[in-house]
Amino acid sequence: MLGKIALEEAFALPRFHEKTKWWAGMFATDTDKHTAEINDVGPIRLDFAERHGVGLQILSYTAPGVQDIWDAKDAQALAVEINDYIAEKVKAHPDQFAAFATLSMHDPQEAATELRRCVTQHGFLGALVNDTQRAGVDGDDMIFYDNEKWDVFWATCTELDVPLYLHPRNPTGTIYDKLWADRKWLIGPPLSFAHGVSLHVLGMVTNGVFDRNPKLQVILGHLGEHIPFDMWRINHWFEDRKKMLGLAETCKRTIREYFAENLWITTSGHFSTTTLHFCMAEVGADRILFSIDYPFETFGDACEWFDSAEMSNTDRLKIGRENAKKLFKLGAYKDSTA
Amino acid sequence: MLGKIALEEAFALPRFHEKTKWWAGMFATDTDKHTAEINDVGPIRLDFAERHGVGLQILSYTAPGVQDIWDAKDAQALAVEINDYIAEKVKAHPDQFAAFATLSMHDPQEAATELRRCVTQHGFLGALVNDTQRAGVDGDDMIFYDNEKWDVFWATCTELDVPLYLHPRNPTGTIYDKLWADRKWLIGPPLSFAHGVSLHVLGMVTNGVFDRNPKLQVILGHLGEHIPFDMWRINHWFEDRKKMLGLAETCKRTIREYFAENLWITTSGHFSTTTLHFCMAEVGADRILFSIDYPFETFGDACEWFDSAEMSNTDRLKIGRENAKKLFKLGAYKDSTA
Amino acid sequence: MLGKIALEEAFALPRFHEKTKWWAGMFATDTDKHTAEINDVGPIRLDFAERHGVGLQILSYTAPGVQDIWDAKDAQALAVEINDYIAEKVKAHPDQFAAFATLSMHDPQEAATELRRCVTQHGFLGALVNDTQRAGVDGDDMIFYDNEKWDVFWATCTELDVPLYLHPRNPTGTIYDKLWADRKWLIGPPLSFAHGVSLHVLGMVTNGVFDRNPKLQVILGHLGEHIPFDMWRINHWFEDRKKMLGLAETCKRTIREYFAENLWITTSGHFSTTTLHFCMAEVGADRILFSIDYPFETFGDACEWFDSAEMSNTDRLKIGRENAKKLFKLGAYKDSTA
Amino acid sequence: MLGKIALEEAFALPRFHEKTKWWAGMFATDTDKHTAEINDVGPIRLDFAERHGVGLQILSYTAPGVQDIWDAKDAQALAVEINDYIAEKVKAHPDQFAAFATLSMHDPQEAATELRRCVTQHGFLGALVNDTQRAGVDGDDMIFYDNEKWDVFWATCTELDVPLYLHPRNPTGTIYDKLWADRKWLIGPPLSFAHGVSLHVLGMVTNGVFDRNPKLQVILGHLGEHIPFDMWRINHWFEDRKKMLGLAETCKRTIREYFAENLWITTSGHFSTTTLHFCMAEVGADRILFSIDYPFETFGDACEWFDSAEMSNTDRLKIGRENAKKLFKLGAYKDSTA
Repeated sequence: MLGKIALEEAFALPRFHEKTKWWAGMFATDTDKHTAEINDVGPIRLDFAERHGVGLQILSYTAPGVQDIWDAKDAQALAVEINDYIAEKVKAHPDQFAAFATLSMHDPQEAATELRRCVTQHGFLGALVNDTQRAGVDGDDMIFYDNEKWDVFWATCTELDVPLYLHPRNPTGTIYDKLWADRKWLIGPPLSFAHGVSLHVLGMVTNGVFDRNPKLQVILGHLGEHIPFDMWRINHWFEDRKKMLGLAETCKRTIREYFAENLWITTSGHFSTTTLHFCMAEVGADRILFSIDYPFETFGDACEWFDSAEMSNTDRLKIGRENAKKLFKLGAYKDSTA
Repeated sequence: MLGKIALEEAFALPRFHEKTKWWAGMFATDTDKHTAEINDVGPIRLDFAERHGVGLQILSYTAPGVQDIWDAKDAQALAVEINDYIAEKVKAHPDQFAAFATLSMHDPQEAATELRRCVTQHGFLGALVNDTQRAGVDGDDMIFYDNEKWDVFWATCTELDVPLYLHPRNPTGTIYDKLWADRKWLIGPPLSFAHGVSLHVLGMVTNGVFDRNPKLQVILGHLGEHIPFDMWRINHWFEDRKKMLGLAETCKRTIREYFAENLWITTSGHFSTTTLHFCMAEVGADRILFSIDYPFETFGDACEWFDSAEMSNTDRLKIGRENAKKLFKLGAYKDSTA
Repeated sequence: MLGKIALEEAFALPRFHEKTKWWAGMFATDTDKHTAEINDVGPIRLDFAERHGVGLQILSYTAPGVQDIWDAKDAQALAVEINDYIAEKVKAHPDQFAAFATLSMHDPQEAATELRRCVTQHGFLGALVNDTQRAGVDGDDMIFYDNEKWDVFWATCTELDVPLYLHPRNPTGTIYDKLWADRKWLIGPPLSFAHGVSLHVLGMVTNGVFDRNPKLQVILGHLGEHIPFDMWRINHWFEDRKKMLGLAETCKRTIREYFAENLWITTSGHFSTTTLHFCMAEVGADRILFSIDYPFETFGDACEWFDSAEMSNTDRLKIGRENAKKLFKLGAYKDSTA
Repeated sequence: MLGKIALEEAFALPRFHEKTKWWAGMFATDTDKHTAEINDVGPIRLDFAERHGVGLQILSYTAPGVQDIWDAKDAQALAVEINDYIAEKVKAHPDQFAAFATLSMHDPQEAATELRRCVTQHGFLGALVNDTQRAGVDGDDMIFYDNEKWDVFWATCTELDVPLYLHPRNPTGTIYDKLWADRKWLIGPPLSFAHGVSLHVLGMVTNGVFDRNPKLQVILGHLGEHIPFDMWRINHWFEDRKKMLGLAETCKRTIREYFAENLWITTSGHFSTTTLHFCMAEVGADRILFSIDYPFETFGDACEWFDSAEMSNTDRLKIGRENAKKLFKLGAYKDSTA
């Protein structure tokens, strides 16, 4: 289909060229190609989009990005630089590109303020955060956003009426040493990403973030970071524990209700029709959004899969574009992709 | 159906009555009932089995059990006590009960020796281990079995031709403090169990345990601890990384091949027909085994679901009994449940 | 869920009491109970609805009804009698009952006129027709509505903006003799119903009825009378034949487009979650409507299944009520079932 | 995968070249190519097989074939000619080709005798029959095989321990005139094939053929000719009708039992992973067989789909080859495809 909207699409700052290339060595077969693709916010992406029927790309800074910087000031400075950089790039192609804000997550108020600036001044469509924020003197602390301290940030998201994409980042510090160092091939897409994000977002669910911020919208990549698989099992235990054990105090609704009212999942990096159909049964097509995860995945793999995956025309349009238009209030987008 | 075989069914030592009851307070609505059920290896279970069409229960010591004991001598002593205790109980009802060995996993050779004793002397059908072994002076170390040191143990499993059930245990020590303490409702079935076991077993896959022990059989509960959900995505990354990055050195086969030749999943605690059908597509009905997770789940919930879940008669028989008969060489069992 | 809307719900005229009871002998285990239930348009149904969370029942005359009457005048007279009868009944419980018009289908203009009368004077929500109209001197002719003669009727449906429910009827005449007489157990729900309706509605598709009447809405019961099962296969052949063989002249869109824009399916008499999930993948949850097929099926079977079937909250609401509200423009209904 | 076995693969007699080409005009875009392909029992097929990983093709005479000939003597003569013709062809490539007997179905004993000759003298693997046999002076009669007269034939199948493939044929005579003439695009794969075969095989089920011949094995193409879609619904009505209405007299088992013990389905002409997964849930992977429906479908479409369709390795092997090896006792085949 034409006019697809994709929303887990990474870019990097060209000034980090060497570091980006070194990082690519951990997963890419052609590090030069990867570096060129992630640094480009112009012809390479636009050409792929044209060839594969993507109308709009919502760009975000690549992981781990600012969440990897445990010095709060440095983190904030980099976030601002990234946001101003991508704002300029988006302005050059406003019909093809949009952006998520990059945020330092050391301080809730600071993050809220930068999000507000990005949305109101730059017209960004929300924020994308790479899981917990590294912090502490040696970077071994992890700041989670699933507690009351962060309500000021979440309240800003809902006030601005923009979603947050909770993207993974690689394990670091003690967690890396204890769990992942001896099984490095599981870091990233095969396992660690889902572990990080599923813990974080279900922490938000059970710690009451969505009850205190009932209009908050959070997006999860990779078809939901394993959570839909256990929808029955999670629901079974949550509802059972609510009967006597206190969970009901902070988590008033059912897991299915949070998925119906607060959570979204994207197809980024998970181009399996079988899994998509399973998610359509457990999560519902109204809460699924097409995405690629470029340049870690290719436009070709994602789009050829999605365009030919067996599903109804209605659901293809919803997942491919219409759901995103509702979530991001892209009413005017319709005309440009007719 | 009659004559179902169930294999994630826990018992406790009656002498730990008070501790068992205290532990039950974390999840059970009726701690006395739970304690009575888990301590019973006789009339209560037999009555449930009779009423719900379970022919054979393969019993195992409850989690975290011996894996929670970081003193190696204490751990070994408790394992031997448990094995001798349950061996006596099983002898009283050899047609209804069987057992998995409980093992201290501080030392591969010691674990192998105790497994051999249990299989050859007691007729146990394999072992069930609760994820990593706590170790170190303060119990903060975690022993994984996914490295070459453990090949002597895995070789014994294959020599004895018995499977190992890799069961979860609760997070402890630093991992608990950093990840789970502030989101306690996710400990256990809702999330931490799957995180622990999926990491451990995929570590075995990528670190070459199954390549060095190609006949090794490992069983995972809860429909596979999330892994089937990402079969496509794991396969996609593994195969891609093999092309240049070294994974192929230790992980020669595809993730689908390990699931076809070395891994099994059970329905314990996950009574969702939708998820079962998804696993039938991704893993195949030949590798799925019925189980309950009693007394954390009820015979009624598990059996009423399974007996009426929509599937072919052939698959119901396979998942309910025939696959287990093949895995555990229970040829004679057929007659007793005709 | 509460406030479900059901739309394949049959009534009979009490004056045919003996005939209804005789007919019931072919399928019902308790013919008196069945006759009482189908003749009731009041307390029995209202009580079932109250107990099982059905808010609105759209009633229709039982099959084969007027489609079984091959004398055109008699057919028209009976249709008018039925419509005036049920209009009175609905007026007594306007929040709980609505109705589909019963139509003699001997003459397109006559059928259109009676539909218009029912919609404009009685407030009926559309029509339900029991497959082909018997006709001819001995009742062996079958009038199909999939040709241009019937465009005046279909145009009236779209002008009035009401859907037609294409319900099955039993095989008769030569067709009965040649195909069904020697395999009587297949008559009705097990097979003949799906054969009749799938032929008729796919005839409408291939003969251009939906191309000439692009806003026409047709509802199929029983999860689509087998058609979703072959969505891939039908699409494969239709698109192939269009390339050179003339099908494109009358059937401009793809089968998936007709299902997205013109067709609806209901759950009547097919309470299988597995099949429902399959239809969610092939047809999409936006085009599926809850229904019972009372009194041939029970409120209990239908509602207990639907209320507990594994699916997202969003889809349960859509299938259970919201899709029907859109199709039948029942905006005001929302308030009464909040 | 290599070594796939395919079993709905049609050939024609070269002497009917003109007629075959005329017939091809109804569905083929290139009638010369089609005619060449269907007449070839050698290099064209062998090349396709080599390129697409098909090890063994079980060949059968194209529909409607002998079932279209209402003169009994002519029908028998043609059947014998076809069988002797293909026997010679198979002998030239015994590792790549096998055959189903073609049978005149005017007389049960004659059909049984010819089947016996083909199996014992020619080594055929069973028979393929194109639905009902045309009969009567003008060809308007239809002989069904679902009554006791045919038990002698079915007994021969079970005695010889070979299956029968119940293949469709086009509607003819009165049935054609009344149902299909005005909706010709539905003839064949889009609808009429499934109507014919589903009626015939469910007639066999309800009329007791499988109860009187409990070892009889019947194969259905096209993923089961719609029947799996209604497994729940058929089961629901059959079991309900058995309670009082007499169905239990001839149909002692459940529809799921007949599918587990007597029926098989193939993928011929239905290359939908979604539908295949649905059939794996409803029918089970142990009863599904790969097939192409060549030359009406292409080796490329069938094999590229099947080889990459998402499923477990175990099920791919079973559906692709192992199930067929069991059904046809092809133990020696294993070696040739290792």
